[in-house]
Amino acid sequence: MTKTNAGRFFEDYAVGDVITHAVPRTVSGGERALYHALYPVRGALYSSDEFARACGLPASPVDDLITFHTVFGKTVPDVSLNAVANLGYAEGRWLRPVYAGDTLVSQSEVIGVKQNSNGKSGVVWVRTSGRNQRGEEVLSYVRWVMVRKRGEGEAPETVIPDLAEAVAVGDLVVPQGLTFEDYDFTLAGEPHRLRDYAVGEVIDHVDGVTIEEAEHMLATRLWQNTAKVHFDATNRADGKRLIYGGHVISLARALSFNGLANAQMIVALNGGAHANPCFAGVTVRAWSEVLDVAETDAPGVGAIRLRLVATKGTAGVLRGDDGKYHADVLLDLDYWALMPV
Amino acid sequence: MTKTNAGRFFEDYAVGDVITHAVPRTVSGGERALYHALYPVRGALYSSDEFARACGLPASPVDDLITFHTVFGKTVPDVSLNAVANLGYAEGRWLRPVYAGDTLVSQSEVIGVKQNSNGKSGVVWVRTSGRNQRGEEVLSYVRWVMVRKRGEGEAPETVIPDLAEAVAVGDLVVPQGLTFEDYDFTLAGEPHRLRDYAVGEVIDHVDGVTIEEAEHMLATRLWQNTAKVHFDATNRADGKRLIYGGHVISLARALSFNGLANAQMIVALNGGAHANPCFAGVTVRAWSEVLDVAETDAPGVGAIRLRLVATKGTAGVLRGDDGKYHADVLLDLDYWALMPV
Amino acid sequence: MTKTNAGRFFEDYAVGDVITHAVPRTVSGGERALYHALYPVRGALYSSDEFARACGLPASPVDDLITFHTVFGKTVPDVSLNAVANLGYAEGRWLRPVYAGDTLVSQSEVIGVKQNSNGKSGVVWVRTSGRNQRGEEVLSYVRWVMVRKRGEGEAPETVIPDLAEAVAVGDLVVPQGLTFEDYDFTLAGEPHRLRDYAVGEVIDHVDGVTIEEAEHMLATRLWQNTAKVHFDATNRADGKRLIYGGHVISLARALSFNGLANAQMIVALNGGAHANPCFAGVTVRAWSEVLDVAETDAPGVGAIRLRLVATKGTAGVLRGDDGKYHADVLLDLDYWALMPV
Repeated sequence: MTKTNAGRFFEDYAVGDVITHAVPRTVSGGERALYHALYPVRGALYSSDEFARACGLPASPVDDLITFHTVFGKTVPDVSLNAVANLGYAEGRWLRPVYAGDTLVSQSEVIGVKQNSNGKSGVVWVRTSGRNQRGEEVLSYVRWVMVRKRGEGEAPETVIPDLAEAVAVGDLVVPQGLTFEDYDFTLAGEPHRLRDYAVGEVIDHVDGVTIEEAEHMLATRLWQNTAKVHFDATNRADGKRLIYGGHVISLARALSFNGLANAQMIVALNGGAHANPCFAGVTVRAWSEVLDVAETDAPGVGAIRLRLVATKGTAGVLRGDDGKYHADVLLDLDYWALMPV
Repeated sequence: MTKTNAGRFFEDYAVGDVITHAVPRTVSGGERALYHALYPVRGALYSSDEFARACGLPASPVDDLITFHTVFGKTVPDVSLNAVANLGYAEGRWLRPVYAGDTLVSQSEVIGVKQNSNGKSGVVWVRTSGRNQRGEEVLSYVRWVMVRKRGEGEAPETVIPDLAEAVAVGDLVVPQGLTFEDYDFTLAGEPHRLRDYAVGEVIDHVDGVTIEEAEHMLATRLWQNTAKVHFDATNRADGKRLIYGGHVISLARALSFNGLANAQMIVALNGGAHANPCFAGVTVRAWSEVLDVAETDAPGVGAIRLRLVATKGTAGVLRGDDGKYHADVLLDLDYWALMPV
Repeated sequence: MTKTNAGRFFEDYAVGDVITHAVPRTVSGGERALYHALYPVRGALYSSDEFARACGLPASPVDDLITFHTVFGKTVPDVSLNAVANLGYAEGRWLRPVYAGDTLVSQSEVIGVKQNSNGKSGVVWVRTSGRNQRGEEVLSYVRWVMVRKRGEGEAPETVIPDLAEAVAVGDLVVPQGLTFEDYDFTLAGEPHRLRDYAVGEVIDHVDGVTIEEAEHMLATRLWQNTAKVHFDATNRADGKRLIYGGHVISLARALSFNGLANAQMIVALNGGAHANPCFAGVTVRAWSEVLDVAETDAPGVGAIRLRLVATKGTAGVLRGDDGKYHADVLLDLDYWALMPV
């Protein structure tokens, strides 16, 4: 009897299945410090308990992407160990801040399956939910991946979930108590508020960071993400370790501080594509495009919808004439963040 | 007067000497987070306060090998700075869990000396004990090293301690309050309980991790281990930094999650050999062999004795026809862990 | 309207200006653990809560250089983003220990400006002050940098501040309650007390550490230091990343444990020069020269003034016949530390 986990294949997913993912995780100031060492993070609300309190929160939460990576990491052994590709995200919503001392668990429901015409793989859609030790949902998102088939069995009935193009403004969840009425722009680092941003505006975040192998592996292990391709240099014919897409998300988001210092809290993930693979030695830069702006009911709190692009190349360049992502583009992410109006 | 520590030589050890090692260390959630970033650790009991509480502990302890490395690191300036080789371990017992906030100190007693026939070095046996801030013993183990002689003086009387081949089942210390009666196999990550493992069974843990220089140095410094060979690329003629053997222990143990997810707590170290040196760039894999199984008095708690092998090569391969370790083998470790019956 | 920070130019500083730096930072056990993984730190007072309590403090503070780097890092976007060179430090004083949970902010006052004769740059002197969440000053120091001019405008009136050659003994601030009356030299790691050190004595700290790119970037990001040259391999023609000078300071200070284990707390920075740039792959060694010794009013607490030199070469070598720093010298730092008398 083999005792090790070979991962699931396309045949192992049926619409309606609920998978409880293993290894709950208590996060602490240690995870936060590591996150701030791994990425050039400077958002004041995630850096200072005092700043967070002045915004109506009990303390500084752990970075919203720590929550994402932790919840996501748990799904890897059950969802993407045999994945050929991570195809997309939708309907991601941060529902409650996570604080040092909280313990996170993840659960996924299979909401769609579609066998590919080659009969050798298929697409699986899951809605993943992260909860804290009180059972409160902290994050929910849909992800779909292409997974290999084990055998040559019949195709299941195709179910393609109906997914929102973007999270509606009315569905954004503002953390309880949050206020930007007395927001300190000096301590936050930039004077720009929501009304200073125009839809269509493109911001070049200027700075670049060259990635080292040790860094992306430290990060990926921290989220208990077990995908071999990130750690084992013997896994690919070219001897390269593929960098976890979430590492690029966090790096680009951190770089976007320079120009978006007040886009404090991520509240929704509308979509995202890992446009090209990323390897150590690459210098990652970032640019953003303002896609939308909106108000919320919370005092002084607005929302900004942003396209965040990580690139090896030039700001503003996204796709070629053929409509495909430019070879320099690593990430195209669409998200909502909260910002002082 | 020289102020720096040149380390002890063979002549500086006499049976019965007690050495209090310097630099007590308070561990926190920071050490734990770093440990989880350095190694692909997924053991639920060391990841989640909630899981640990469901097992009868007050919170999730720091990883049992954090305790080992911290206690061990303190001994290096007094025991192994002039060591030619780290020869073996015996009678290691974890006596009490260590929690964030605890402060550890180490003390060693010289229990054996034997000059080598060449008259230039000798073997020293020490029994090392780690204690917390309440003076309670948390770990005890015997280690023996080969140490250079300073001069050409007479050999001391040979004393070779009588060491157990393995820690007896009756000497295993189960943490107070531990119960696996309500153990959650889903959250732990695998369904296999003690009765599913057969003595003689070999488990290939499948995954591999390629080691970077930055990683092993971060780890080794974290345990305040000062041995030059790990940090200084000018120290060896080949310009390589020798990786601390404990880094390989932690890496192999973490990899063994895949197949031994429920071997939760290490309670004894029966023996161990660093079979071959390890350097950055190596891809480490691991396999285990079940050596024994046993019951304990704690509810639902059994014990499993395992051989854990770290290798650059193939699972199951340990020694050549000459009885020597195969050149691919990095570590051969014999330990007891607690597992649900 | 550009939203990103292009940094200040020489024209943007006027004597008397006060700059509140962005991004307050709460430090935790996570920052401490990372610091102890990044540098071979072994000072007992910064390692053990119990040892710190035996010295009259409520707990072990975060390392004094964590305070320095955190306060310094915040000044980079406002002071040194367009700096050509970091020229010197003076009148640095640690005024209060920082503990896990404290939140730090930085503020700088411009105290001097002097345009260079080429009309293309100038020197700016700032006095930077770090405060905790209670508004108490924890650190104060003067730094001067050479900054590019934006345009060709007239030179401002030259103001060169009158700076002390060294912090006077009477101005050293001993943390409230500190006592070395019951100091445990065994746990601290060395028997040497203040009276064992002679002015003029040179100590070779023996050990060396070879630096990796991942390490210095982790450190520099942790202090939220945003200077491009440290992270972006495309920034210099030679493809090298310049290592943050503070990384070398921390590395050398940690190495100096071997011979100065009882120089526990840094209380003043008299001056310092980053003599030559440092890059990954370099093996850093350190040596110290005793410059002065003094008493304080606190029980058993003396002060030692040290020159700390980081070098790629030989201990004791500082300058060539031309009076310039030897090409091997990376750092020449002059500081006061507290030591048992």
